[in-house]
Amino acid sequence: MARAWHLASRPEGMPVAENFELKEIDLPDLGDGQIRVANKWLSVDPYMRGRMRDIKSYVPPFQIGEPMQGGAIGEVVESKADGVAVGDMVQHMEGWRDEAVVNAAESQKLPELDMPPEYFLGFLGMPGMTAYFGLLEVAEAKAGDIVFVSGAAGAVGSTVVQIAKAKGMTVIGSAGGQEKFDWVSGLGADKAIDYKSGPILKSLMEAAPDGIDVYFDNVGGDHLDAAFAVANDRARFAECGMISGYNDTDPMEFRYIMAVVAKRIRIRGFIVTDFIARAQEFYGDMGQMVAAGKIRTEETVYEGLDKQVDAFRGLFEGANTGKMLVKV
Amino acid sequence: MARAWHLASRPEGMPVAENFELKEIDLPDLGDGQIRVANKWLSVDPYMRGRMRDIKSYVPPFQIGEPMQGGAIGEVVESKADGVAVGDMVQHMEGWRDEAVVNAAESQKLPELDMPPEYFLGFLGMPGMTAYFGLLEVAEAKAGDIVFVSGAAGAVGSTVVQIAKAKGMTVIGSAGGQEKFDWVSGLGADKAIDYKSGPILKSLMEAAPDGIDVYFDNVGGDHLDAAFAVANDRARFAECGMISGYNDTDPMEFRYIMAVVAKRIRIRGFIVTDFIARAQEFYGDMGQMVAAGKIRTEETVYEGLDKQVDAFRGLFEGANTGKMLVKV
Repeated sequence: MARAWHLASRPEGMPVAENFELKEIDLPDLGDGQIRVANKWLSVDPYMRGRMRDIKSYVPPFQIGEPMQGGAIGEVVESKADGVAVGDMVQHMEGWRDEAVVNAAESQKLPELDMPPEYFLGFLGMPGMTAYFGLLEVAEAKAGDIVFVSGAAGAVGSTVVQIAKAKGMTVIGSAGGQEKFDWVSGLGADKAIDYKSGPILKSLMEAAPDGIDVYFDNVGGDHLDAAFAVANDRARFAECGMISGYNDTDPMEFRYIMAVVAKRIRIRGFIVTDFIARAQEFYGDMGQMVAAGKIRTEETVYEGLDKQVDAFRGLFEGANTGKMLVKV
Repeated sequence: MARAWHLASRPEGMPVAENFELKEIDLPDLGDGQIRVANKWLSVDPYMRGRMRDIKSYVPPFQIGEPMQGGAIGEVVESKADGVAVGDMVQHMEGWRDEAVVNAAESQKLPELDMPPEYFLGFLGMPGMTAYFGLLEVAEAKAGDIVFVSGAAGAVGSTVVQIAKAKGMTVIGSAGGQEKFDWVSGLGADKAIDYKSGPILKSLMEAAPDGIDVYFDNVGGDHLDAAFAVANDRARFAECGMISGYNDTDPMEFRYIMAVVAKRIRIRGFIVTDFIARAQEFYGDMGQMVAAGKIRTEETVYEGLDKQVDAFRGLFEGANTGKMLVKV
């Protein structure tokens, strides 16, 4: 019998335990082209909060009473799909459960990069691609730029910091708390900001006396407003996420947004799946950076499917350093 | 003796009469390359509010005790410049006064388009170029797009409405009050919104059941937030101005700004002077639209240099329909 997390009710503000229910599910027999996967690693990501709302967006909302979904990596235990054998490690989107039947065409065998499989949910997976294309394509960041990245201790942000350094940029990273501050500094950021130590605007003004050319936004709110304040002329903002607002029902307040006009700021929202066709380019370049020792990683791991809701809630409480994962 | 408006003090919030002083000034004798101009028409524009602040921006701030500046059109009454004759009509930036000595190189003779000269402070001048390049270049608007423009009864906005219609777009324009609503409708907007008649979000949702592809922003604040709410996927926002915030010391509030990520919205601030090198392209295309009867204009005229402060303050009170001008 497999077990899967279901959406029990839609949260208002911060999700609570009662919004989720772990239930047994019957898995179907395999049809042609399908595989059965024993999940080993499950991802929790901030964007999942958006799917808990009943709003049409770039991914459909979770439905009440139905199983939830998300990134997962597991081992194939039964296969009726050509080219996929028992024992293969695959990545797919039927997470939030311990076992899944998926169409092989909707899964990917892990690239043979001789890396721990869970890395493919982190800096070698969606978060890594988000960092890579968001920084280099969306924000058009280049050597010599001064880059500010918020959420710099997270899965995406920590990868942005390291790619930016590998590409010859100056990097300012913000994160919450001394431990994360230390980790971001250790990743090679030229300046780190602990946003819990004082107003982000003041900290950023001190950290960026020459302004910023690029802002990689994971936070929104006061971080975005501070970025408006210190942005240089023609700065480029990549809008990856605004986690500060995901559980907040109050409007975000901006004192410096008018700088968008005077400084000719360019802001662009993006979704990583827009770049999925360029995955090989990402693996190629990222593989070189990893081989050159320029990318380090860290995971925060919760053990057991039972803990997935705790892991997910932890994202919004800053409980993770690096990628937040659940080990089944 | 010439007279010129001087900055007496910096306003907090809405400018008041005491922030300005009309004083006599001595004009110098002409040097080589200079001309003396009797100003006939003076411009007031929202961006001038920014120059009253002591903040470094794309134009330097006005200095306390010094004359103010701005667009002006006048007749040359004395010339020591090659190619400029007494009687020529020129445009220059020494406005807020009745007579000025300027370097001929910093003035432009009016193009010979057989138009009233004051049009070159409006839809054939900076506001017109702002509308033209903002819509077509910055927002990359094209035939078939649904375009929302705020401040649609203003000098820039009313030109945006008409260029968009001439280029085959669907246009929704917002303005304040029944009279402006009627004028915007008369310009050919497919839908007009009187934002004083109810919340802009509700009005825009009703006016844009198929969403918007382009937002030309003159207002910021609640209009910008409503545009986030109704924007289609990959909508483009041209940030021309945010007049709602120029005199407001409170932060702007946004409930829908997170849509920038999910909808992959692109936002770009711009300054019209970035496009000044392409003025001939503008005159050529605009001249054709005018000849084809596709562009109409209206001015709100205050008579006399004494009235310039009233005209300027009127911009922020919605006192103008079309271009706000002072006739000297």
